Amino acid sequence: MIRVGIVGGTGYTGMELLRLLTAHPEVEPALITSRAEAGTRVDSLFPNLRGHCDLTFSGPDEGALAAMDLVFFATPHGVAMDMVPQLLAQGVRVIDLGADFRLRDSAAFAQWYGMAHRASDALGDAVYGLPETTRAHIPGARLVANPGCYPTAVILGYAPLLAAGMLDPETLIADCKSGVSGAGRAAKVNLILPEAADSLHAYGVSGHRHRPEIEQELSLLAGAPLTLQFTPHLMPMIRGIHATLYGRLRSALSDADLQAIFAEHYGREPFVDILPFASHPATRSVRGANTCRIAVHQPRPGQVVVLSVIDNLVKGAAGQAVQNMNLLFGFPETLGLEQIALMP
Amino acid sequence: MIRVGIVGGTGYTGMELLRLLTAHPEVEPALITSRAEAGTRVDSLFPNLRGHCDLTFSGPDEGALAAMDLVFFATPHGVAMDMVPQLLAQGVRVIDLGADFRLRDSAAFAQWYGMAHRASDALGDAVYGLPETTRAHIPGARLVANPGCYPTAVILGYAPLLAAGMLDPETLIADCKSGVSGAGRAAKVNLILPEAADSLHAYGVSGHRHRPEIEQELSLLAGAPLTLQFTPHLMPMIRGIHATLYGRLRSALSDADLQAIFAEHYGREPFVDILPFASHPATRSVRGANTCRIAVHQPRPGQVVVLSVIDNLVKGAAGQAVQNMNLLFGFPETLGLEQIALMP
Amino acid sequence: MIRVGIVGGTGYTGMELLRLLTAHPEVEPALITSRAEAGTRVDSLFPNLRGHCDLTFSGPDEGALAAMDLVFFATPHGVAMDMVPQLLAQGVRVIDLGADFRLRDSAAFAQWYGMAHRASDALGDAVYGLPETTRAHIPGARLVANPGCYPTAVILGYAPLLAAGMLDPETLIADCKSGVSGAGRAAKVNLILPEAADSLHAYGVSGHRHRPEIEQELSLLAGAPLTLQFTPHLMPMIRGIHATLYGRLRSALSDADLQAIFAEHYGREPFVDILPFASHPATRSVRGANTCRIAVHQPRPGQVVVLSVIDNLVKGAAGQAVQNMNLLFGFPETLGLEQIALMP
Amino acid sequence: MIRVGIVGGTGYTGMELLRLLTAHPEVEPALITSRAEAGTRVDSLFPNLRGHCDLTFSGPDEGALAAMDLVFFATPHGVAMDMVPQLLAQGVRVIDLGADFRLRDSAAFAQWYGMAHRASDALGDAVYGLPETTRAHIPGARLVANPGCYPTAVILGYAPLLAAGMLDPETLIADCKSGVSGAGRAAKVNLILPEAADSLHAYGVSGHRHRPEIEQELSLLAGAPLTLQFTPHLMPMIRGIHATLYGRLRSALSDADLQAIFAEHYGREPFVDILPFASHPATRSVRGANTCRIAVHQPRPGQVVVLSVIDNLVKGAAGQAVQNMNLLFGFPETLGLEQIALMP
Repeated sequence: MIRVGIVGGTGYTGMELLRLLTAHPEVEPALITSRAEAGTRVDSLFPNLRGHCDLTFSGPDEGALAAMDLVFFATPHGVAMDMVPQLLAQGVRVIDLGADFRLRDSAAFAQWYGMAHRASDALGDAVYGLPETTRAHIPGARLVANPGCYPTAVILGYAPLLAAGMLDPETLIADCKSGVSGAGRAAKVNLILPEAADSLHAYGVSGHRHRPEIEQELSLLAGAPLTLQFTPHLMPMIRGIHATLYGRLRSALSDADLQAIFAEHYGREPFVDILPFASHPATRSVRGANTCRIAVHQPRPGQVVVLSVIDNLVKGAAGQAVQNMNLLFGFPETLGLEQIALMP
Repeated sequence: MIRVGIVGGTGYTGMELLRLLTAHPEVEPALITSRAEAGTRVDSLFPNLRGHCDLTFSGPDEGALAAMDLVFFATPHGVAMDMVPQLLAQGVRVIDLGADFRLRDSAAFAQWYGMAHRASDALGDAVYGLPETTRAHIPGARLVANPGCYPTAVILGYAPLLAAGMLDPETLIADCKSGVSGAGRAAKVNLILPEAADSLHAYGVSGHRHRPEIEQELSLLAGAPLTLQFTPHLMPMIRGIHATLYGRLRSALSDADLQAIFAEHYGREPFVDILPFASHPATRSVRGANTCRIAVHQPRPGQVVVLSVIDNLVKGAAGQAVQNMNLLFGFPETLGLEQIALMP
Repeated sequence: MIRVGIVGGTGYTGMELLRLLTAHPEVEPALITSRAEAGTRVDSLFPNLRGHCDLTFSGPDEGALAAMDLVFFATPHGVAMDMVPQLLAQGVRVIDLGADFRLRDSAAFAQWYGMAHRASDALGDAVYGLPETTRAHIPGARLVANPGCYPTAVILGYAPLLAAGMLDPETLIADCKSGVSGAGRAAKVNLILPEAADSLHAYGVSGHRHRPEIEQELSLLAGAPLTLQFTPHLMPMIRGIHATLYGRLRSALSDADLQAIFAEHYGREPFVDILPFASHPATRSVRGANTCRIAVHQPRPGQVVVLSVIDNLVKGAAGQAVQNMNLLFGFPETLGLEQIALMP
Repeated sequence: MIRVGIVGGTGYTGMELLRLLTAHPEVEPALITSRAEAGTRVDSLFPNLRGHCDLTFSGPDEGALAAMDLVFFATPHGVAMDMVPQLLAQGVRVIDLGADFRLRDSAAFAQWYGMAHRASDALGDAVYGLPETTRAHIPGARLVANPGCYPTAVILGYAPLLAAGMLDPETLIADCKSGVSGAGRAAKVNLILPEAADSLHAYGVSGHRHRPEIEQELSLLAGAPLTLQFTPHLMPMIRGIHATLYGRLRSALSDADLQAIFAEHYGREPFVDILPFASHPATRSVRGANTCRIAVHQPRPGQVVVLSVIDNLVKGAAGQAVQNMNLLFGFPETLGLEQIALMP
């Protein structure tokens, strides 16, 4: 059993992380912090945990955190960077579900997040924790930067064709749709049900913080810098991301060969499910599960459309963090992540 | 490991049963039938099961069913009654999630379900499978009548006060709200999203088939016949039942004593959670879990309001069936039912 | 054409009022105030008004308000009471959509709203503006207290039987369900879509501010003080209230006589629609319309169930305010309120 | 007053048409047919029309239809083609909201709709009724082919740049999202709320019937054949289409010049609203209104993203049909179409 702490436990990623860790056989969730809710029982805020979790939120306490084997940060950007270096120095491993260590370039961070990076020395320690593309680097890492939700869906969808060098890098468009939980557990008028239900809209079309993160990772996969048109939309639903990914092939591929590239690329992956050619995955097919389901289409020769769905809180956040934890500590990668998606 | 079969596996209760049984460590789901989908892989209909279940729907095959240790019926009323007697005769145990064996009086069945009961001899074998009220009779049963979803929420909410003889039996009103999955996985215009979303309405106010079932069980608890005003409503949501239960006390009780009656009645129950006095449980707090959460209020002296929430597909159907199966076969009652509700 | 102002125009009732007034042929919406949005174009906040409304929010300006023929208050309680007396003194008529002038007893106001009433002298000027029960008093009024949303649905549902003296006043239970817009356009975590969608819960079961308002008006209709069990629930939908109203008859009535009481009571009302006996109205049948649809049931002799649905923002707020305005100024009562409900 | 008939009145487009026509000052809806519901009062099926409409569904009666000034077809493809030629011969004008007369090429019709066109002679009479692009031809038409919902949103969004010759025709991708009412009022399992709510998926990615219709009209606008990648998605909401339209500029344009192309192209259109540059329209901003709101973005030089939203049942179907009717009969184009969208 390892002892783990969560910093920032009152948001959706912290809440989902606690749901998963509570059921994990090798983990004792020992500490969960929240400045605002210090002293409140966790299960009074999250009644689904009644009978499963006896923790009480504590204030941020770096001493207590230092006694953990692993600390998860489920905090807005700018928080982890101030606490992580000391924890690392004390030998605590860290998985940051926020954005502080995802961009390798601190100048890019400053540009997109509007603040200087105050722990740029630690960037070199950070491993981008998308196991299906970076697994080899994770077990030995001290600091894992857990990917954003959109980047997870987009990168997994594009990876096979980019790794195979088959896509024209000038033609990538990711039209993405997210449930409202992706915006966090925040008191904002635009997120209340009468504003967000029975409607949808795009946002950040001219620029969104996940774009440089996606471009960074896709460029690594492609072996050359590339750019992406990234268009997120807010959907009237709770969980789920659907990435509709467009690109043109550099040279002709039959449908069967196209499908084979995906099937072979992900052949042994426990959390990526390649559907039959020209399928249409629904987000609910992964609700609550750590699975990414992918289908590929070629509506006209050379025009590829990849459909990639995840649960933004699981494979897009907390589930992926548990997967990274399993890799860090040598547990079976699927341990604690076997839940079947909840349908309907 | 026991081998189990499901008759009628394409509805929501069959689908949820399969989700739970697939993850149950002592069960091998060996057979699932569907006249309409015979030959179809189960996971092509229910993609959440991809990677978890290799079954294919078979046609109804009584020989194959007879080789099972246990058969679940997840069928419309009128189906199980024609197959159950023979299975029982062959030594197969049966849990019927439909309505055929819930009413002890075959005349009442005929009146409410519009058909004669064709297996009334088997009614004597049937045990009403609500473990919190009938647990003692279940382990030795050959045939378990799994309760309806509304009855589960209503009976659990009223049981403590009725068993204590505290309620005036003339004053019971159950105002119930159900998600649309309670109406089944059926191609009906009134259930399509544009009809059922962003709206609500009552139905069956002048009479609903779950009323005699509830009255039968509440009368047993009260030790005398009683009647109930039962008002179901269709809610614009997928899962969940919220029962708002009204009644007047026969004699004065303090709030603390009222709460104590509930706490003591359910003190050792793993699947009933009594909230602090005057709480307001949300259906989402039990989404996907086999839990019934109950809160009690006394807005004015003598006027009691009990709030009882369940997931209609879990504690209201498939989860309760697994709980009954655990009792039938001597497994720990909570085995395979430890899932934490999915929030948000 | 009359010139009207709206104080507090950024909430849902103000927004809906502006939608209705913009289309009203005898009204010029001349002024709309909002402390927070002063200087913002109204249609930048509410894009449905683009091309229909050129107003800009102004700060609260009592001088400008005094130049209006009529001022609507769409403000939280406690605001109108500080501005209304002076406007009345200047000859401006007022319709308050908030709660300040609904309770005739300032002590009751203080008890339920947690503040002393600072304009109790004006309470005597206030007419409770539910035209179907108080129409005679409205045309000559200077100050109209527009009813709450729940009270509108509940009072209209009970009125025929109470006015006829047919209900046992000890047996009234109003189990009410409201869409989330009833909670206002407010940045609260519990209202965001991931919290409020696909779930439901009761609230204020032990006491809600609309209860004394309903009891006050029902007592007047009944001619004697009565009490009510009032149970509101938050529904995962945008608009709509469904009141499920219970009561016992004092003496036997046939179903036909029961129906006739409703049909005759509301025979000439343009905005109350009595459905055929034992119908089940859906809230969507009044979405966007100023209509209350009512159906009555008698499931067992003597047990009455009345179903009453309104759009909480129209008949439950802004539409009713326009109806009151029409009465105040001698316009046809239905003017500007002829919209057909939006289905689906 | 003109007398109009509707063939196929029980679907969503027929229902919405009736809502609009009932409120139209120059129209008497005189006849509405439905084979399945003949003899049923319209307002018993659509209770929002209670008090507004006294019609009863009649069976298909070509004699009665021939007495109308105008007949709308709100029928599945294949119905209108068998009745329209005779009506035209009898001097009745026709607006077909179905697909029978949208494709000018009967071979394309046969390919995409799986049946031979049985009235190909009438294709020459048909005018594609998207007033913003084909207005000049409508007043004199005998037969108007009312556009599909997706085509309306997509064509209006691309038209300014295509008409200006600014788009590279090899780069068009229309990623479209539709509410479930777009699938019609049909009893299909995949449309019931538990299947369609809180989830989303693409469909028809490899080919959808609206693609040839869009390509036909866009090619006319561009003056040369072009192809489009069209990707529809089913959204968990009732009404609304959001088209996210991608394309690359043939030559550089400043943001201001790009915006000016849209503003000038639609400068005098009553039903197209060009938002400020880089806005994000929400579908709810047009709910119930005959408006198309459009915003344009240029996230990187040369990469254009156009966002176009409509209510699929209004501007995407019934409202557009009324707009066409107004043009056919010389009424003001906006008559009966002034409704303000319902928000929230």
